[in-house]
Amino acid sequence: MQSANTHAAYCLATYRCYDEKADFHKKALGIAVGLTVGSWTDLPDARKAEMEKHLGRVVQVNVHEPVADEPASGRYADIQIAYPDVNFSRDIPALLVTIFGKLSMDGRIKLIDLDFSDGFRSAFAGPRFGIQGVRDLLGVHDRPLLMSIFKSVIGHDLTALREQFYQQAAGGVDLIKDDEILFENPQTPIERRVEVCMEAAAQASKETGQKLLYAANLTGPTFGLIEQAKKAINAGANALLFNVLAYGFDALSELSRHPDISVPIMAHPALAGAYYPSPYHGIAANVLLGKLMRLAGADLVLFPSPYGSVVMPREENMAIKEALLTDAAAPLKRSFPVPSAGIHPGLVPLILKDFGSEVVVNAGGGVHGHPMGAAAGGRAFRQAIDGCLSGTSLRQYAADRHPELQAAIDAWGLKE
Amino acid sequence: MQSANTHAAYCLATYRCYDEKADFHKKALGIAVGLTVGSWTDLPDARKAEMEKHLGRVVQVNVHEPVADEPASGRYADIQIAYPDVNFSRDIPALLVTIFGKLSMDGRIKLIDLDFSDGFRSAFAGPRFGIQGVRDLLGVHDRPLLMSIFKSVIGHDLTALREQFYQQAAGGVDLIKDDEILFENPQTPIERRVEVCMEAAAQASKETGQKLLYAANLTGPTFGLIEQAKKAINAGANALLFNVLAYGFDALSELSRHPDISVPIMAHPALAGAYYPSPYHGIAANVLLGKLMRLAGADLVLFPSPYGSVVMPREENMAIKEALLTDAAAPLKRSFPVPSAGIHPGLVPLILKDFGSEVVVNAGGGVHGHPMGAAAGGRAFRQAIDGCLSGTSLRQYAADRHPELQAAIDAWGLKE
Repeated sequence: MQSANTHAAYCLATYRCYDEKADFHKKALGIAVGLTVGSWTDLPDARKAEMEKHLGRVVQVNVHEPVADEPASGRYADIQIAYPDVNFSRDIPALLVTIFGKLSMDGRIKLIDLDFSDGFRSAFAGPRFGIQGVRDLLGVHDRPLLMSIFKSVIGHDLTALREQFYQQAAGGVDLIKDDEILFENPQTPIERRVEVCMEAAAQASKETGQKLLYAANLTGPTFGLIEQAKKAINAGANALLFNVLAYGFDALSELSRHPDISVPIMAHPALAGAYYPSPYHGIAANVLLGKLMRLAGADLVLFPSPYGSVVMPREENMAIKEALLTDAAAPLKRSFPVPSAGIHPGLVPLILKDFGSEVVVNAGGGVHGHPMGAAAGGRAFRQAIDGCLSGTSLRQYAADRHPELQAAIDAWGLKE
Repeated sequence: MQSANTHAAYCLATYRCYDEKADFHKKALGIAVGLTVGSWTDLPDARKAEMEKHLGRVVQVNVHEPVADEPASGRYADIQIAYPDVNFSRDIPALLVTIFGKLSMDGRIKLIDLDFSDGFRSAFAGPRFGIQGVRDLLGVHDRPLLMSIFKSVIGHDLTALREQFYQQAAGGVDLIKDDEILFENPQTPIERRVEVCMEAAAQASKETGQKLLYAANLTGPTFGLIEQAKKAINAGANALLFNVLAYGFDALSELSRHPDISVPIMAHPALAGAYYPSPYHGIAANVLLGKLMRLAGADLVLFPSPYGSVVMPREENMAIKEALLTDAAAPLKRSFPVPSAGIHPGLVPLILKDFGSEVVVNAGGGVHGHPMGAAAGGRAFRQAIDGCLSGTSLRQYAADRHPELQAAIDAWGLKE
C-alpha cells in the first residue's frame, strides 16, 4: 500500500475481477485513481500534495492464475482498494456509488468484501436493539429463538389472519413475521391487521406464558415510510419487517435511528438474489446481507439457509453470520442471523451446530405443514431446540414423550 | 393462459430460468401459485371462487433445449407469469418484491422482461418533462442533444469547478452533469456549486447564444432528498442527477412527481452492473434502465454505450432505447436515452444510426481530452452532429473548415 495517512480514514473495498489477460496491477491502479482523483501522474507536484488525501490506494492485488484444464474464466484477481473517507458523505448510497457505481459495469467484477473505517462506521447507530435487546424484549436468554412466518395470506380476511396468527403463536414461537408480499390492502390494512394479531398474541401469551414479537410488513411510498411505521407502532406492532433492498440501505439506516420507531426491525432479503449468486457480478452475500444490514441497523436479518429449498452455499451463510456477530464491528450491536427457507424441526441440530445459540430458527412450512397442525408445529420446533440443548440425541428426545417432534421427524426426517 | 379475467388487471413478468433437468411447466405453475395465493389445488371450490382473482397465471413457457455440444447450462425456459394487480400496492417496491423478491434467490433465474398493466401504470406520472419537455427548456428541436460530464472534481474548489464548467459550456453543449461521485463536501457544497456553475452557464450562454441545463447531483439521506433537491433548485439548479439504484425506484418516482421539484431528473446507472450483466441472475437492462426508469419518471437515462470503454451489448442498448421511446408505454412521456462512456466525435455517426435523433450524445474524455481543449471538444461534437445531419461524410465535413472535428478524428478515429 502506498503511504495512506492513517488506516482509519479509508474504507476498504475488495473486488474479484475475472479477466483472461488483464494486467491486474494496472487495473487496480486505474480503479484507485479513476474512482477518486481521476488522474494522478500528470499532476504537478504542488497539486499532488493538495490532492494526496483524496487519492485512492491499492492495498493488495492477489492474482489467481488458472491451473491446467480450468476454463479461461478461471483467471482472476482479488483487488483491494482503500477509498479516502473524505471523498464521500457518511451514508451508504455515497459509499456504494463511490466504490461500485460505475465500476459495477466494468466487465467481470464482483464486490466481495467491504471494510468500513472507524470514522465512517461512527456515523451509524447500527441495530437499536441487536441480539441482546431482542432477547430482553422477549425475556429469553438461554436458547435460540423460534420464528414462524405467515403462510400466504393474500386474499384472506382479518378473521382468517387472526386464526392463523393464534395457531402459530400457541405453539410457543417467539416471533411471527408477515409475509413480505403482503402490502396495504382493503381486507387487512396494517392498523387493523396489527390490532387483531396483537390480540391473538395476547391470547396465546396467556396460555404459553411467553412474550411474542410480531413483525408487521412496512411497505408503501419511500417518503411515507416513517409515517407508515408510526401507524403500525401506534396500532401495537412491536416489530417491523422491511424489504430493505427495494428501498436502499439508507432508508433502513434512517428508520432504525428514528426516535419514534422504537421497535426491532427485521430485514427481509427480497431481491437479494439479483445481486449475490453470480461469481462474476454483483455484491457478495456477506457484504449485502451481512455487513451492510448490520451497519444500517437491522436487528434481525433473514437470508436463504443452506439447508432447505432456497439454497445458499454454507460458507456464504457462515460469512453472513460472521458479519452479523463479529466483535470487530463494535460498537455496533450484533444482528440476529435468521437462516430461512425449507427449515423443519429435524434440521435444528444442523442449524445450532452451524450458528450456535445466537440464531433465530425460522420456520414456514415446518410449522404450518406439521401433521398435527401449526400449534403442534411450533411445539415440535421448541422441542427440537430443547432437545439439542439437553445434549441427548434428537431421535431419542423425540421418542421420549415428545410426540410433536416425533411426528415432524417422521414426516421430514432428521439430520444430526 | 388460464382464464385471466381481463388482461388489464395483471402485470406480466418474464423470467429466463436455466436448469438442466427441471420440468419448466411445473416450475412456472409453482411460481404463479406460490407467489400469489400460496396453494390452489387443495382449496375447496367455494374458496377457489373467492381466491381466483388473486391467483397468478402462467402465460407461457418456452423451453429451449440445448443443441449438441452446447454446455448443460444451455437448457433454459422463458417463463411468463401474470400477477394480479389486486395483490400489490401501486408502487415499484411492491411490484418488484412480489415478482422477484423471493424468486430472485431461487436458482438460476433472471428477470428479463416486465409489462405493466394499464391500471398499474396509471398510478405513475412518468417523466414530468420527457424528451419534448427537455427540448422545450433548451429550445432545441432539430438535432440530437449534446451533454458533457464533469471530469473528476473531488478535491477541487469552486473556482476550478467554475472554470471547468465554463470551458465545457463554451463549446456549445446543451447539458452538463455533475460527476456522480461528487457528494456534499465543504469545498463545493451543492448551493455554492450550483450558484457558480449557473453563473458560468450564463456567461457561456451570452457567447454561444444557447441555453444549458446543469444536472446537480442529488445525494444524502433518503428522507432528506426532497429538501436537498429544493436547496439545489433554489440555488438555481435547472436539472438534477440522481443515483436511482442506490435509493430505489420509488424515491425517483416520488421526486419526479413532487410539486416543488420542477426540473428534469437525469437517472444515473451507478450500481446497475450489480444487476444486469449475468445471463443467469439479476434484472435485464431493458427492465432496469429502460421500463422501470421511465415508469419512475426519469427524463433522461444514462446507460453504458456499446461503443466505448464500459461496454453493454448493442442489442441490450437497443432494448433500453425501445423501452424509453416506445409509444406502447403512453401516456407516459418518453425519456431521453443517453448512451455513455468512451464517446468521441468520430462515434457520432454510429450513435445517430443506432438511436436516431432522439438521443443525447454524452461525452466525458471526448470533450475534456480534446487536443485543442474542452471548448474545442464541445465544438467538435456539435460539428459531428451537424455533419451527420447534413448528410455529407463526416470525414469530408471535418476537412471542410471544421478543424476541431478534424483534430478529434485525428486523435480518436472515425466510425461511419
